[in-house]
Amino acid sequence: MPISLGELATSQGCELIGDPDATVSGVASLQNASPESLSFLSGSSYLSQLPTTKAAAVVLRAEDADACPVAALICDNPYATYARMAALVCPEPLFAPGVHTTAVVADSATIADTAHIAATAVIGERTVIGEHTVVGPGTVIGSDCNVGDNCRFIARVTLVQDVRIGTRGIFHPGVVIGADGFGNAMTTDGWVKVPQLGGVVVGNDVEIGANTTVDRGAVGDTVIEDGVRIDNLCMIAHNVHVGAHTAMAAMTGIAGSAVIGKRCLFAGKSGTVGHINVCDDVVVAAKTFLTKDVTEPGTYAASFPADNARSWAKQLARFRRLGTLIERVKKLEK
Amino acid sequence: MPISLGELATSQGCELIGDPDATVSGVASLQNASPESLSFLSGSSYLSQLPTTKAAAVVLRAEDADACPVAALICDNPYATYARMAALVCPEPLFAPGVHTTAVVADSATIADTAHIAATAVIGERTVIGEHTVVGPGTVIGSDCNVGDNCRFIARVTLVQDVRIGTRGIFHPGVVIGADGFGNAMTTDGWVKVPQLGGVVVGNDVEIGANTTVDRGAVGDTVIEDGVRIDNLCMIAHNVHVGAHTAMAAMTGIAGSAVIGKRCLFAGKSGTVGHINVCDDVVVAAKTFLTKDVTEPGTYAASFPADNARSWAKQLARFRRLGTLIERVKKLEK
Amino acid sequence: MPISLGELATSQGCELIGDPDATVSGVASLQNASPESLSFLSGSSYLSQLPTTKAAAVVLRAEDADACPVAALICDNPYATYARMAALVCPEPLFAPGVHTTAVVADSATIADTAHIAATAVIGERTVIGEHTVVGPGTVIGSDCNVGDNCRFIARVTLVQDVRIGTRGIFHPGVVIGADGFGNAMTTDGWVKVPQLGGVVVGNDVEIGANTTVDRGAVGDTVIEDGVRIDNLCMIAHNVHVGAHTAMAAMTGIAGSAVIGKRCLFAGKSGTVGHINVCDDVVVAAKTFLTKDVTEPGTYAASFPADNARSWAKQLARFRRLGTLIERVKKLEK
Repeated sequence: MPISLGELATSQGCELIGDPDATVSGVASLQNASPESLSFLSGSSYLSQLPTTKAAAVVLRAEDADACPVAALICDNPYATYARMAALVCPEPLFAPGVHTTAVVADSATIADTAHIAATAVIGERTVIGEHTVVGPGTVIGSDCNVGDNCRFIARVTLVQDVRIGTRGIFHPGVVIGADGFGNAMTTDGWVKVPQLGGVVVGNDVEIGANTTVDRGAVGDTVIEDGVRIDNLCMIAHNVHVGAHTAMAAMTGIAGSAVIGKRCLFAGKSGTVGHINVCDDVVVAAKTFLTKDVTEPGTYAASFPADNARSWAKQLARFRRLGTLIERVKKLEK
Repeated sequence: MPISLGELATSQGCELIGDPDATVSGVASLQNASPESLSFLSGSSYLSQLPTTKAAAVVLRAEDADACPVAALICDNPYATYARMAALVCPEPLFAPGVHTTAVVADSATIADTAHIAATAVIGERTVIGEHTVVGPGTVIGSDCNVGDNCRFIARVTLVQDVRIGTRGIFHPGVVIGADGFGNAMTTDGWVKVPQLGGVVVGNDVEIGANTTVDRGAVGDTVIEDGVRIDNLCMIAHNVHVGAHTAMAAMTGIAGSAVIGKRCLFAGKSGTVGHINVCDDVVVAAKTFLTKDVTEPGTYAASFPADNARSWAKQLARFRRLGTLIERVKKLEK
Repeated sequence: MPISLGELATSQGCELIGDPDATVSGVASLQNASPESLSFLSGSSYLSQLPTTKAAAVVLRAEDADACPVAALICDNPYATYARMAALVCPEPLFAPGVHTTAVVADSATIADTAHIAATAVIGERTVIGEHTVVGPGTVIGSDCNVGDNCRFIARVTLVQDVRIGTRGIFHPGVVIGADGFGNAMTTDGWVKVPQLGGVVVGNDVEIGANTTVDRGAVGDTVIEDGVRIDNLCMIAHNVHVGAHTAMAAMTGIAGSAVIGKRCLFAGKSGTVGHINVCDDVVVAAKTFLTKDVTEPGTYAASFPADNARSWAKQLARFRRLGTLIERVKKLEK
């Protein structure tokens, strides 16, 4: 819906250079913006696109305002400010309260009057769904779950059982929370399944990406604290504890009973082994795997950037001859 | 259904050495073929199985025909020719037009008369489904999607919203297209969600494997061009652009805003960081991760083959002593 | 349900040191146990928690019994014994026989009288579901599948078609079995899909984790033998053969036609290339990728533990100068 620059500036405490009555009705990148678009500039990567933007207004830092050919909304954190403004310009769709006739809700479940339960959703015994929460189509919420207010299960999410979720959570399609952890005891007759009897506790303001899995605890709970953001196709194993505001990019895997601190950042395809402790404010580079406790904040890495395959083959051969090389140096030293 | 060798040869322009009236009714590997089977030989790996095959006929190159103990269908590209013949011998099942009584279709959706909407499928507002398209059971297609003709959503696929798909696409169970990208702005109070407002555009003849996710753009669209093939459990992040006829094997991950060229091949567990450009005709080896622009066609690699664990431990120790080794060589040089 | 220590000891052939009439009604870790809990000690990692445990009883080895402040259930394999006892203390919920009114079952399907078909499940033509098998909500079982007795499909599982499963299998949400393998033949006009016409055969006592995919064979079947355990988000490609009692942790990927032996262990994020043979009793370390046949049992590894990013950058630079270093040593040798 069209919203004036003045209103946007006021809502986020920005300085506005430009006409407060001008309006925007959508968002776009600097390059693709039209005169109805709000755009933003954060960091220097896209600075070269600023002088030619056709946007109605650009959210940016004071130092970039001079180079802005259109209205400027000036603030300290343009990306976050843009995010909040974009939510005003393009609000989430509203979902009418009520339970769709094709949804299947157990008699003992408690659904808030303002909740929306979509077509073909299934809700189990003794489960509680909070106010304004949207349970999208094809979602299965098993028994004994407790979901807070203003959550959104987009579609086809599964909470298996004994999952407790705070408020304002967002869960994308294919997410599975509360499946059994991978607990198997070896015997001479093969594996014996170790019953997985814990639950999952998810805090407030958590977002979990498509097809990510969070297993229930073996005994005791798997815990995801407030404000955690997890991308698609990640794996959080049984009894993992993820600290508040930690973010994990796609395909990250955290093995069982690992304890991850607050405000950590896991880049794509990273992970940890099980049963380790990672302190607060740790950054793990892409494809990197933590194999022991981390007690110092900082960035950790262990991956090799791609090389031309022929060069890499040579390099691999050199690597394999390291033992010989060390011998040769030893010999020279004698 | 039984089909004669003559008909197969004619359909694909092959030379047939053998009885054109003989028939095949199924397909099999050289080793497991029965006298009703069509088989093929492509490359030399399975050449040793040719002399003893019990197949009715084998699709192969001219140079291998002499060694073929049964009827031979001769062509330049046996694997592709076999693929087309197999589709004739074992045609896809037919799906009756119509909407199952348990499917839930929004009033404003437009479903082609020849489309098949299976049990428990859900289709949202203003969505258009093309001729002969099959929407399998449990599939959820959200609002404002446009699906072309002759597509197949096998089962339990999700298109979240604003997804446009061309013709003849095949989408396997668990695929999620159009979920929110991973956009988060850090503030002193934690993460602010950056609204994901773009769509996804998928070309013609695209196939996407089970449980793969393709996120919607943040602003602007994520794009999958014609003829792209993506295997299971892959991740295509927001605003990625995948060029025509590129193929990605299982567990490949492409991070946000990466632009991938045409006819690229990504082997299993490979990927790229975000915001890079990869030119046409690039091959990325298994487990290899591109970290910067690739401007030259060719093969890129950066992974270590598995070694005996004891040898590997020694090798790791040698690797860690590289700094010392360099010092020792420096000393020797003095 | 409360169960006496005497009954537990007898059921598993343990020696009990303590009151046989004391009861337990739940399970817990040593640290979190209450006087109603059964706990266990396996290995030495948690030995320090034994002296202060508040558990009713601890399953442990004879050598640890003296340090146990509460009742002790003594056995040789405490983890497996605990697993079996936990299944007695916390039995699986029972599912009433019958087909839910919202389930959609094809006329030609055969559902055992004691099977439970939950809300919104869909079962295809000619499919057979065995006694006491539970087909959870949102599960889609396609045509021509055969599922044995006492299986559990927790929720939202998909068997595409031609999948045969033995008895006592457990399949977690999001599992996809029998989707098309990744078969594509390159032509000058782009990819031609190679029809995937095989099935999947799964043995008895197999458990498969959330969002894992097992593709159908191209020709012939993909095979998972008895007692195999596969964790979440794994990929088993077409025509793979996994030997009995092999276990794969999360995010393992096995490429097409690989043959994996019995009792192998794949740690998280490991895998193999296609078309290789791996013998029995092979252990593959985390993040390690087998690239050729393995003929000797043992442990295989090829990954680098994470390092401080600055150290790693230096180490990478050293690694890249290996060629120069070798030249320098060669020069010194002359």
